[in-house]
Amino acid sequence: MLKFNLLHTDTNSKARTGRLETAHGVIDTPIFMPVGTQGTVKAVAQDRLRDDINAEIILANTYHLYLRPGTEILESAGGLHKFMNWKRPILTDSGGYQVYSLSDLRKLKKDGVEFRSHIDGSKHFFTPEKVVNIQRSIGSDIAMVLDECTPYPCEYDYAKKSTKLTSDWAELNRKAFHNSKPLYGHEQFQFGIIQGSVYKDLRELSAKKITSLDFDGYAIGGLAVGEPTKDMYELVNFTTDFISEEKPRYLMGVGRPENILEGIARGIDMFDCVMPTRNARNAYLFTYNGFVTIRNANYKTDFNPIDSACDCYTCRNFSRAYLHHLFKAKEVLALELATIHNLSFYLRLVRDAREKINGNTFIDWKNEIIKKISINIKNMTED
Amino acid sequence: MLKFNLLHTDTNSKARTGRLETAHGVIDTPIFMPVGTQGTVKAVAQDRLRDDINAEIILANTYHLYLRPGTEILESAGGLHKFMNWKRPILTDSGGYQVYSLSDLRKLKKDGVEFRSHIDGSKHFFTPEKVVNIQRSIGSDIAMVLDECTPYPCEYDYAKKSTKLTSDWAELNRKAFHNSKPLYGHEQFQFGIIQGSVYKDLRELSAKKITSLDFDGYAIGGLAVGEPTKDMYELVNFTTDFISEEKPRYLMGVGRPENILEGIARGIDMFDCVMPTRNARNAYLFTYNGFVTIRNANYKTDFNPIDSACDCYTCRNFSRAYLHHLFKAKEVLALELATIHNLSFYLRLVRDAREKINGNTFIDWKNEIIKKISINIKNMTED
Repeated sequence: MLKFNLLHTDTNSKARTGRLETAHGVIDTPIFMPVGTQGTVKAVAQDRLRDDINAEIILANTYHLYLRPGTEILESAGGLHKFMNWKRPILTDSGGYQVYSLSDLRKLKKDGVEFRSHIDGSKHFFTPEKVVNIQRSIGSDIAMVLDECTPYPCEYDYAKKSTKLTSDWAELNRKAFHNSKPLYGHEQFQFGIIQGSVYKDLRELSAKKITSLDFDGYAIGGLAVGEPTKDMYELVNFTTDFISEEKPRYLMGVGRPENILEGIARGIDMFDCVMPTRNARNAYLFTYNGFVTIRNANYKTDFNPIDSACDCYTCRNFSRAYLHHLFKAKEVLALELATIHNLSFYLRLVRDAREKINGNTFIDWKNEIIKKISINIKNMTED
Repeated sequence: MLKFNLLHTDTNSKARTGRLETAHGVIDTPIFMPVGTQGTVKAVAQDRLRDDINAEIILANTYHLYLRPGTEILESAGGLHKFMNWKRPILTDSGGYQVYSLSDLRKLKKDGVEFRSHIDGSKHFFTPEKVVNIQRSIGSDIAMVLDECTPYPCEYDYAKKSTKLTSDWAELNRKAFHNSKPLYGHEQFQFGIIQGSVYKDLRELSAKKITSLDFDGYAIGGLAVGEPTKDMYELVNFTTDFISEEKPRYLMGVGRPENILEGIARGIDMFDCVMPTRNARNAYLFTYNGFVTIRNANYKTDFNPIDSACDCYTCRNFSRAYLHHLFKAKEVLALELATIHNLSFYLRLVRDAREKINGNTFIDWKNEIIKKISINIKNMTED
């Protein structure tokens, strides 16, 4: 059983701090997990991730790693930790989301999903068992189950059928996990995923079914897929009530800084999103005072750091003017420096949140931060 | 006057070791200078360059920096060292070469060269004085004069006229340098450039004229532009005899590892080339046993480092299989890790050369290394 110690629950909200103990180290929650899809967090090296960004756990992607480099190479390497030389925890999503979003052709069947590789068009079939086995080859500390992530909008009838499918698969996932063993001598854990689209009755049904399977932790999936943000918050709040307080809760694919803070307020412990890394590569930089759109001409002669309150490698060493120049000149270093900053910001955000929760000042702080951040966050381009 | 201490001359060749003292630190020669065209050595951050790669001096480009970010911004920043946060020495080439190779339209005139920016087509005019002033704005430790770099092949008559032009400009360059002052409180030095294409009489003429102007050091330009390698070696050997032993000698734009070793044997102290950085980005990795073309399928399951004798960050931490995966998956990290390795190799090459020169075993070592390196170096693709 995964050891999760709840340290403190905020007196004014469902926000809580905790510690998750894995074979590759302890994770303080609430935590943000940088996304390392293909066995690398885009544009930053592993030492930066550890020493400069202070990442406690990263995400990797089952679908991508299965297609390339493939399980054979991962097993020869002794698992993903050794292959990429990352000694801290890794969580792998199941690949279900990528099958739906990336592959050219997919057929959902009762026992799994057939798809074609986005790389070479080759045909593959994912079942819950297969996905568990791939994650054994990867050796991730936390393995997510195969599920169906419903789109938005989603008809009630489709959502109901899909929730049933995800529940059936969850059982198979759990069984396959119990019937298989880790390959590299360290313990792995498995999280279930609660679906149900925007329908509360389906969310309740899914939550009750999935939590009955006694996973090591629970994710809320199928949100942040286009539904109104207030619906997302409401559904998160509704769903966390069905998850035991003693289990870690993970809101998948979320999100903007304010989404993360609102998620924490509603009892979420773990988050992942491509937002900080992808925005970095597109020259959008996060600060507590909103976005710095570093390509803008007004930064050409601005010799301040991106954020004078930030102590990341980028802010300690380089000016906005230099970053502006690097982006304009299309230099690779721009991607690295921006990524270091944005991930440092996200890790600082959850670190600050933990401190505020422990001091029971989280809600006031959160509201103040969101007000400041939101000033120009709506002007952000997502792509 | 630039302080250059000759430490030792090889008993069996013209190879020598020395120390060059600049305001930003001491440079051990022979040295290789990584190319940082636009105020960044492509794909590596400044701390890597200093701590992992051990770069003692880097090159920056007058043409590029003049066009972007421009001298106004460089001056506001307090010079290029501060703008890019690089505290060690910087050498700037004059931009002449880029005017000839990059700009859309150029007209060579008696007093300078007119050209259009490759970025926005805007019209500019470089004179020796102008180039000196730009380099004052940059604040480079060593500033190269504006010259004309003749192409290969080059008719004798054209080469003769061009050598004369370069000599006339050299005088103007020197005068402009003496008539101007550093902007940032540190001393700058100026190197002359000897031209003359492949014609020994012109090289002699140029060398005598340029050295008479008493520059702080002398470069040999207009080589490695397509002429046979043995002609290059012969011309280098011929030309260094006309340069006082007490002055540093710089062979511009050279080159492959074997070119550098042969240059050292002929009395050269300084080198620069895009070869290690550009090849890194194209997945060609240098070792003393020749190239590792890391995209090749045989590296897919090779869990050894690029070079087990190399102690760079990349080789200490990552396998060929991981590098292969990163290049195949088009990950940005591939560029950084490959660049760290290739530059570390070049810096190790000159460090090893210095040690061998001091021990009077340089020539035997050089011949052995070149034999090993050349096995598959000819299969390299340059692009």
